[in-house]
Amino acid sequence: MKEELGQIIPSYPMPVALVGTLVKDKPNFLTVAWLSMVSYKPPMIAATLGSHHYTNPGIKESKCFSVCIPSEEMVKSTDFVGMHSGKDQDKSGIFELLKGKTKAPMIKECPFCVECELEKVDTNGMNETFIGKIVEVYADKEVLTDGKIDLSKVKPLLCSQGDAQYYTLGEKYEKAWSTGKDYKV
Amino acid sequence: MKEELGQIIPSYPMPVALVGTLVKDKPNFLTVAWLSMVSYKPPMIAATLGSHHYTNPGIKESKCFSVCIPSEEMVKSTDFVGMHSGKDQDKSGIFELLKGKTKAPMIKECPFCVECELEKVDTNGMNETFIGKIVEVYADKEVLTDGKIDLSKVKPLLCSQGDAQYYTLGEKYEKAWSTGKDYKV
Repeated sequence: MKEELGQIIPSYPMPVALVGTLVKDKPNFLTVAWLSMVSYKPPMIAATLGSHHYTNPGIKESKCFSVCIPSEEMVKSTDFVGMHSGKDQDKSGIFELLKGKTKAPMIKECPFCVECELEKVDTNGMNETFIGKIVEVYADKEVLTDGKIDLSKVKPLLCSQGDAQYYTLGEKYEKAWSTGKDYKV
Repeated sequence: MKEELGQIIPSYPMPVALVGTLVKDKPNFLTVAWLSMVSYKPPMIAATLGSHHYTNPGIKESKCFSVCIPSEEMVKSTDFVGMHSGKDQDKSGIFELLKGKTKAPMIKECPFCVECELEKVDTNGMNETFIGKIVEVYADKEVLTDGKIDLSKVKPLLCSQGDAQYYTLGEKYEKAWSTGKDYKV
């Protein structure tokens, strides 16, 4: 017998990212955890933000944004960026900036950054989902294994929304698209 | 200096879920990791699937689906469900079923399940994003702390796509919307 919790936001493990864009020609960042890939070919990623955020008109005007993945060591600056709006706090100088192929600012300290061109905006309730076509992915050599991003080296942050709890990533476990071969129905 | 990895699917830590629906009046499940909340009020969650999947017409016809979060102990059945299409493999008997308020089948063994009514379908490239309004969230008492889902008790699976690697969730770390108060710009 399960408990019924109602129409709540369920606390699944959310990936924590810093979304960068230009707002009024100035770099700005916002902490975002409502994040998902939405297209395999071409690769597209979606970031959902409350529609009141300072970032939103910046993405619409500059037509580009970045999704930068902070390491667990960056937890304080990452949380700070999520607690202060660009309306009241200049966030352009918090991080060392990385320049890519678009105008979207990225963060040097982040182990990897995903640069996107805005494809479209979808609205649901009081949120806007920004869908971006991936233009380039930039990663530190130190977090790669055989040329691929290795999350055990990235040490990303996860977040549980209901209890406002950050988590670290755990251990490498079984191999995907593989361990299920042993399963007998 | 960062390495440029090209227009790839970046390996962020993805939450692993089993999406349930009725296909031809039979319960079916698919492993999905492209998952994100997309609306705060009313709460809506989005699951993105390749458009070729057996599940997709089932969601469109039944107009409901579930997002069930497996624990790390369920890694083999979870991976199995992602490796076999409902076209060739009857997946209705793999799990003990939980019935809710809609026709969407859920999984008793999963520590918590999210029941959704289909709100809309968005198409990007060769993928379909199913956006569901959350009707109810069902959780085992054993994974709650003060009435809220506690991911340290759920022990969910994470997945890194590029290297096909499952991860466990790590330790509770700092508090969100809180630890950033100490940060000095």
